[in-house]
This record gives sequence, structure tokens and C-alpha cells, in this order.
Amino acid sequence: MRISMILRGVGALLAAIGALMSYVAASSLGGPLVLSDEGSFFVRGQNERSEFAAMRGNEPVAGTIRTGQMYVQFKIPVKSNAIPVILVHGANHSGVTYETTPDGREGWANYFVRNGFPVYVVDQAGRGRSGFNPSAINRAKAKGDTSAMPAIPIATREAAWASYRLGPKFPEFWADSRFPQAALDHYFSQAEPMGDGTLTGEFGAQTIAGLIALLEKIGPAVVLVHSQSGAYGLAVARAKPELVRALVSVEGDCVPLSDDDVAKVFNRVPLLSVWADHSFGNKARNGDERRNGCSGSVARIAAKGGPAKFMLLPELGIKGNSHMMMVETNNLQIADLIMGWVKQTAATR
Amino acid sequence: MRISMILRGVGALLAAIGALMSYVAASSLGGPLVLSDEGSFFVRGQNERSEFAAMRGNEPVAGTIRTGQMYVQFKIPVKSNAIPVILVHGANHSGVTYETTPDGREGWANYFVRNGFPVYVVDQAGRGRSGFNPSAINRAKAKGDTSAMPAIPIATREAAWASYRLGPKFPEFWADSRFPQAALDHYFSQAEPMGDGTLTGEFGAQTIAGLIALLEKIGPAVVLVHSQSGAYGLAVARAKPELVRALVSVEGDCVPLSDDDVAKVFNRVPLLSVWADHSFGNKARNGDERRNGCSGSVARIAAKGGPAKFMLLPELGIKGNSHMMMVETNNLQIADLIMGWVKQTAATR
Repeated sequence: MRISMILRGVGALLAAIGALMSYVAASSLGGPLVLSDEGSFFVRGQNERSEFAAMRGNEPVAGTIRTGQMYVQFKIPVKSNAIPVILVHGANHSGVTYETTPDGREGWANYFVRNGFPVYVVDQAGRGRSGFNPSAINRAKAKGDTSAMPAIPIATREAAWASYRLGPKFPEFWADSRFPQAALDHYFSQAEPMGDGTLTGEFGAQTIAGLIALLEKIGPAVVLVHSQSGAYGLAVARAKPELVRALVSVEGDCVPLSDDDVAKVFNRVPLLSVWADHSFGNKARNGDERRNGCSGSVARIAAKGGPAKFMLLPELGIKGNSHMMMVETNNLQIADLIMGWVKQTAATR
Repeated sequence: MRISMILRGVGALLAAIGALMSYVAASSLGGPLVLSDEGSFFVRGQNERSEFAAMRGNEPVAGTIRTGQMYVQFKIPVKSNAIPVILVHGANHSGVTYETTPDGREGWANYFVRNGFPVYVVDQAGRGRSGFNPSAINRAKAKGDTSAMPAIPIATREAAWASYRLGPKFPEFWADSRFPQAALDHYFSQAEPMGDGTLTGEFGAQTIAGLIALLEKIGPAVVLVHSQSGAYGLAVARAKPELVRALVSVEGDCVPLSDDDVAKVFNRVPLLSVWADHSFGNKARNGDERRNGCSGSVARIAAKGGPAKFMLLPELGIKGNSHMMMVETNNLQIADLIMGWVKQTAATR
């Protein structure tokens, strides 16, 4: 064997090792995303018949459509630490909340995957790819009678500006805002009309049932909720405490909690409530009142020895965040804090 | 250096090489999906003000919302052959059409990625994660006047059964059907009410404009359309022939085509029209008439020396497919045929 051949062989070996190392390193540091599986499915749904299921022009078409189903996107990393995380968006949004940020950076879904978590992103029932039920709208159109037709709420830009604390007054931002201001229009493209009212039961009931069905399908998981879905997280923990490995509530409601909830649910379901500094002094829905509700609930649980934590970002030196912290310029720093708590708390449960 | 250390070193080298080889092999054969980038963004959209943008209870809320935007999911493989493919669903669907099949197998999106194509999956404007405009519905609710409110069409199960040729009569399937019958309920969960009529312009206009904007953003790409979006594909090719590397029309309309379209658009935009056997004898929208329109258009283009091909699956020995061939049991076989044509035709353009 000639020296050149040996050298070529060694070179090939080194190249192969180098390539492998770059794959592995990149997977946790922002390079290639290496997934063992990725795709989507639906949970729940029923076959619902209506005389006004569809329309042909202005004429109603009777028939059967699927209603109440919930869309789930999943990404399973090759190197998994085996605690699945379910990411649930808030009002006026879809699962896009956790995808690429409006200014084109990595969102929480991919970042959790890069850190070894199997990730399940949902669209709340009646929104996004979880189709709403158009029957009541089509009935109203066909009959000229809107009495049984639900309204379709959505946050206007002006309302979101105050409620999400993107700025103190339109169009100014907080001076220290972490919101990607140049991408504001792009951000509002992900706003989603809420067709929840077209579905059976109370607003949100189908989403709560969908989250329970998802846990029953995939097994125990961390449930991360935001804002409006904070209340849904409480309901899911109450219904299936054995399947909720931990509840992470990003500026979501933490009340009401009954004494039974404290004693029998959150004595074993670890709860992390995360809040940003700009919530202080805010009188809108996502401000002082909701935050104080959370610090109060955490204190009640902790007083009974339960595994609850109130994480106030400014106490950790992190300032300038709005209600939409998962899309802001320091979103991965906040994700690191959440993942750190999850690994410490839920993994040892 | 002791022998054991050398052996250990060699062992580590071999393990590293083996791992690398398994990564590379798996990437094309169905194992790990290795992506250089993955995420989402929106194209277009406008800030639209309405006195009825939202509702608080039954009271209208004036304000600004984003309308007409189109959601785009992208997946870029590490090993790319650099022809991006845009996957566009048909009526009553969203981009879910190209994700995991209803019976849990690989969809066309991932399969194209595994074969080196950067893939962009859209939700047509007004559907799924491309939020519709609820203003006209909320105005009707607030005023008790439905005259300016559009209907919201959707395919009922019964209508889809005939139109998509899932079976000759409900609930029976064609004897040789490739449709994953046990997953029928799950399939209908992806049906999506069409909010297109709530947007500015003709039905589909915002989607056509969105596809053009997407091409302008990402550069030349193959556009793959299905059914209803066949007509949108023609419109996009007409508007931007230099950006459409090829148009793949899966049981989509191929008419009307003007003489100018034949001479100045499809003389350079390669067109592939794909049809399944169960379209024969079908009088519904996706049957004989549309298929004959396509074979006719392809013949007209080919007569002028244009790069058009009519692919009739039964002529290739592939039988039993419905209108939803991308979710059927032989979906990857059909994808292979399409990719083969794309590589041969579009790559050399």
C-alpha cells in the first residue's frame, strides 16, 4: 500500500469525523435540525350533520362535516431526552406563535426540539388548521337571520397594542421594548379570527378536550400555555394530573384555584408562572390583576409544599418584554430559563 | 501507546463513520430528516380598518386587522438540489394536504424534502393559518343584516365523496381504492371552511397574488397545484413565466388557455398534468370534463413544440387512485413520477 493511499484513507476518516461532529454540534447550536420524525395529525372531532353545512352560491347545502377537531404538528428530535412538550398559543393566534419569529429568527418550537424535547404545537379548535364550523354562518346567510350566529372575535391592532403591551400608545414602543418593531406588520399577519364560538359547548371547551385527548394519545407531557390558554392549562391539569408532567404558564391565568386544586392537583403537577416587567402598571387583561393572581396561586401552592414557582423576569435581570415574549429579541434566553426549570422539576418527578 | 488504546481509537473512528453513514443513508431512505432550515412566514397582507373588525360580546369593535396575507411553511434539506417546490392545496383543504397522510404515513412535503427539494407549503389566503377577515360576519351580527356577508363554502362529506371519488356511493369504496379507508374520519378533520369570500377581490385572487409574491421572494420554483388551485397555477404562470420553473397540476384545471398562453407562456413553462383512473366516467367537477380539458391543453402546447406532458396514471400501470392521490397508499410512488419529470424537465431548463 502506498503512502498516498494511506494518507487519502486517513483524510477520508478525518473528514467523516469532522462532518459528524459538525452535525452533532450544529443540532444543539443552531445548524441543521435533525429529526427522527415530523408531521401532523388531528385529535377528536365529530361528524356533525346540518341543513346548512355548506353553501352553493346563496343556497344552503345539507350534509355532514367534521367539527371540534384539533390540529397537532409534531417534531421529534433524534437525540431526545424524552419529555414531550405541548405548546399552546393564546387568543387571536395559532400555532404560528411558536414557529419562526416575525423578524425571521428561531421560534420556541424548533429551539425546544434542538434541546432534545419532542414538541407538539397545536392550533386551538376552531382556529387555523383546526377548521371552525361554518354552519351557523351559512344558516344566517340563507335565512337572513343572525340570531343564532356567533360573533367572530379577533384582537384589532389597536387592542393588541395595549393588551399585549407592545407599546404604551400607538405607534410608540416602550423605550426598552424587546418586540421586533420593524416586523410589526408581519407579526399581525399571524392574528387569527376565533371561530371557537361556532363549535359545541363553551368558548374553549373543544380545545380543553383536545388537549386532554392529545395527552391520552402521546402520554405524559409538559403543557406550556400562553395568555388565554392559561385557564385551559388549569382545566387540563385538573382533569389529568397524572398526564401533566408540568404546567408552564406564560402570562396565563392562574386563578381560580380551589383548595382541592391546591391540595390534590398542584401538590403533584409542578407549575411555573412566567411574567415580564411591562405587565406592571398595566390595567389591561394581561396586566397587574392577572399577574397578582398568579403570584397568589403560586404562594398558596408553595405554602402547602407544592412544586410551584413564580418567575418574574426582571428579578432575573431580564427587562423590556411584552406579553408576546416568545417572539421577542431575547426569546431564546427566556426559553432557556423555562427549559432549565422543566429539566430540573419535571424530569425528576 | 498501548494496543488497547489504539484499538479503542480505531473503534471510535469506525463508530463515528458508521453514525455518519447512517445519517446520510437515512436522510434519503426514510430515517432522520436532516434540515438546514425550517420555519414559516407570511407573504402580502394589508392593514384594513373596519368599524366591525372585531366583537366584544355582541358589540362591534372598530379597528385595524391584517387581511389577505398568505401563510408559508418551509423546509430546506441539508442536501439540496436547489429546485424549490411550492405545494398548493385545493378547495376545502389547507397545507395539511401535504403533511402526514390521514393513516400516518409520510406526505409529499417531507418526501420531496428527503429527495433534495426545498419545500414551501402554503395555506390559501382566507383559510387555515392564513386568517380570513371576520369583519363582514361581525357587521352582519351587529346590524342583523346579512346582505353583505359572504357564505362560507366547505365540501360536505357527502359532496366530497362524489367529487373526490373516494367511492361510487356512500359509504362504499371503489373495490380497488387506494384511499386509506380506515382513516376516513381523520381525513375529513383536515377539511377547512373557505373564508376566501371574506377577502378583497374575486374568490382566489389573494391566493394568486400571494403565490406571485412568494415566487418573487424565493426566486424561480416549481409550482405544484391541486384541483381548485390548478386555475391559480395557470394564472401565476401567465403572470410570472420567468419564475415558474415548471407547473405540476394534479387533477387541476388546464383551461382556458388562450393562443397567447400557448405561444408565450407554456412554450417555456413546462407543464405536467397528472390524472388518476377513477376520473373516467365521473361527471362531477373533477371528472371527465376537467381531464379532457387538460389532455386538450397539453396537446395544443405540444403541437407547438412546448414542454407539456399529460400523465395518465393507469397508462403507467397505476390504478385505484382518487382525486386525493397525495394521501393514498401509493402516494410516494406518484411523487416519484412527478419528481422524475421535474428533475428531467425543470432542472435542465
